[in-house]
Amino acid sequence: MTVAEAGAMLPIAVDAMGGDHAPAEIVAGARRAADELGVPIVIVGRPEELTDTGGLEVIPASQVIAMDADGASSVRRMKDSSLVRAAEAVRDGRASAMVSAGNTGATMASALLRMGRIKGVQRPAIATPIPVLGSTPTVLLDAGANAECNAEWLVQFAQMGAVYARERYGIAEPKVALLSIGEEPTKGSPLVKETHKLLAEGEWLAQAGATFVGNVEGRDLMGEAADVVVTDGFTGNVALKTLEGGLDAIVSGLLEAFDSSDEARAAAAVLWPTLSPLYESLDPENTGGAMLLGTDGVCIISHGSSSAIAIVNAVRVARDMVLGDVVGHLARTIRPG
Amino acid sequence: MTVAEAGAMLPIAVDAMGGDHAPAEIVAGARRAADELGVPIVIVGRPEELTDTGGLEVIPASQVIAMDADGASSVRRMKDSSLVRAAEAVRDGRASAMVSAGNTGATMASALLRMGRIKGVQRPAIATPIPVLGSTPTVLLDAGANAECNAEWLVQFAQMGAVYARERYGIAEPKVALLSIGEEPTKGSPLVKETHKLLAEGEWLAQAGATFVGNVEGRDLMGEAADVVVTDGFTGNVALKTLEGGLDAIVSGLLEAFDSSDEARAAAAVLWPTLSPLYESLDPENTGGAMLLGTDGVCIISHGSSSAIAIVNAVRVARDMVLGDVVGHLARTIRPG
Repeated sequence: MTVAEAGAMLPIAVDAMGGDHAPAEIVAGARRAADELGVPIVIVGRPEELTDTGGLEVIPASQVIAMDADGASSVRRMKDSSLVRAAEAVRDGRASAMVSAGNTGATMASALLRMGRIKGVQRPAIATPIPVLGSTPTVLLDAGANAECNAEWLVQFAQMGAVYARERYGIAEPKVALLSIGEEPTKGSPLVKETHKLLAEGEWLAQAGATFVGNVEGRDLMGEAADVVVTDGFTGNVALKTLEGGLDAIVSGLLEAFDSSDEARAAAAVLWPTLSPLYESLDPENTGGAMLLGTDGVCIISHGSSSAIAIVNAVRVARDMVLGDVVGHLARTIRPG
Repeated sequence: MTVAEAGAMLPIAVDAMGGDHAPAEIVAGARRAADELGVPIVIVGRPEELTDTGGLEVIPASQVIAMDADGASSVRRMKDSSLVRAAEAVRDGRASAMVSAGNTGATMASALLRMGRIKGVQRPAIATPIPVLGSTPTVLLDAGANAECNAEWLVQFAQMGAVYARERYGIAEPKVALLSIGEEPTKGSPLVKETHKLLAEGEWLAQAGATFVGNVEGRDLMGEAADVVVTDGFTGNVALKTLEGGLDAIVSGLLEAFDSSDEARAAAAVLWPTLSPLYESLDPENTGGAMLLGTDGVCIISHGSSSAIAIVNAVRVARDMVLGDVVGHLARTIRPG
């Protein structure tokens, strides 16, 4: 992709009001993304709070859905919220994608209700990259869109995850696995056993240019056993949050140890050049965020604590997914049952 | 507890044949436990393979259930296996507890089929300690005994987990939480919503001397939000394995960075005294293993990769649970529905 291509695309709509550090960090990120990536950006939010826009176009929206509000009901009620307006901009052909660090449930609901689903998709799923040291991330889905799932939805998640891993990480034939509590097909919940059977028997993954490698366990998420790991949104969200909490705890413990004495600080300074790539590969600021797969338009969900850097990375992913036509690829892979 | 008390107890049966490093490391651990803790030990296994027992009593068993065999069917078939014989020693009053680093499913099945359940317990659950830096571990249950659960079982898990946290970690009034994907009682799977209701309304936890603190998320497992976290065995096992995999990945990455140059090695040596307590608090060798709660006898499940140290720690937990009469406390708390 050239800067000319990116410049010719429809702007990416950034929800300026979503996230713990909104609007200042979000707007700063949007400006940096416009400068550094050469991508047209439109920001969505309360004009009176968006003072330092650097000339970016603003789509006005008078309401803000709080981070802890109920997603679906807020979207139904708050029709002039920044999230709803961002999703409408994509629907109406005014923007090519939306990016938000706001309320995840409300982001999903806005995208689903305003953009609609890709034909044949039963339920959209959140695809989250899990860092793998020294390799491409594992795409985990569903990371929380659907607390309850059936086996057919999980098969579609497998197909969508494969298309996404190819587009986002350039993996020609992604290895797709099912999250369980043992490698044997006989282990796991009834949902897992039924899904395993469908994935092993069907042509589902061949259609998506992918291979089913069977069940994996939680410990394989940060490893190279699979490129895509499929699960229901309850299990996926628990796994994701468990990993985040574990990594945070260790990083805090390490930083405390590194800062425990003058001697320790000096030693840590020597190690830092070697440790910082490790730290950066684990930092959620750098993953580019999760993508909602299955809506008829690109929707990138950035971490609630996103800084400007996280927004730049999320816009980069949005741009790549638009230019790579991931929605078109998904539509051609998922066929109405 | 005094050495005299420990010396007067029935021996603890250690399955010498279970685990990746069996029998050598297991026997070495059993010997060390006998020496260092002053606890009587009996080891169970193939006499011809147990050459370096240091005079420990041996219960002969001619069969070994492989680490990857199906648990329940192996136990039914292999009546002279070390796991079955260890469980029978507890049932028959020849041993006060069993410890194994072997096949988890088979350990559970032997304990359940030979010792039976505590009256009123619907399903035993695996209670696993999750390390919390600078605090007592969080007890997670069920960590994998029951892939499918109903709300009543989860309520019993909450009661059993509370009794166990008090006995094992000395927490007078344990805080018990339910694992979900949001704090709100309306979030989560149907099982979680129903369980939340039962835990919030009932006297269940007051009976167990505990408090229900509501839902927690995966990221709270390594924090201080709760002393006991209850979930079904599928979700619990995924969370546990995800955490183990994440911690392993980070520790490998760190060790590689520390060993990347002479300069890095020197700096790491300076930091080691500060880092080693962190490392040790995360090392599964030091947790003392998981306990199967709900069987009519103490059964400690040590990590498959247990070294001698892990066995010493598992025997210590077994001893404490026997002397503290955790099975009696569980029996008085759980009342037949």
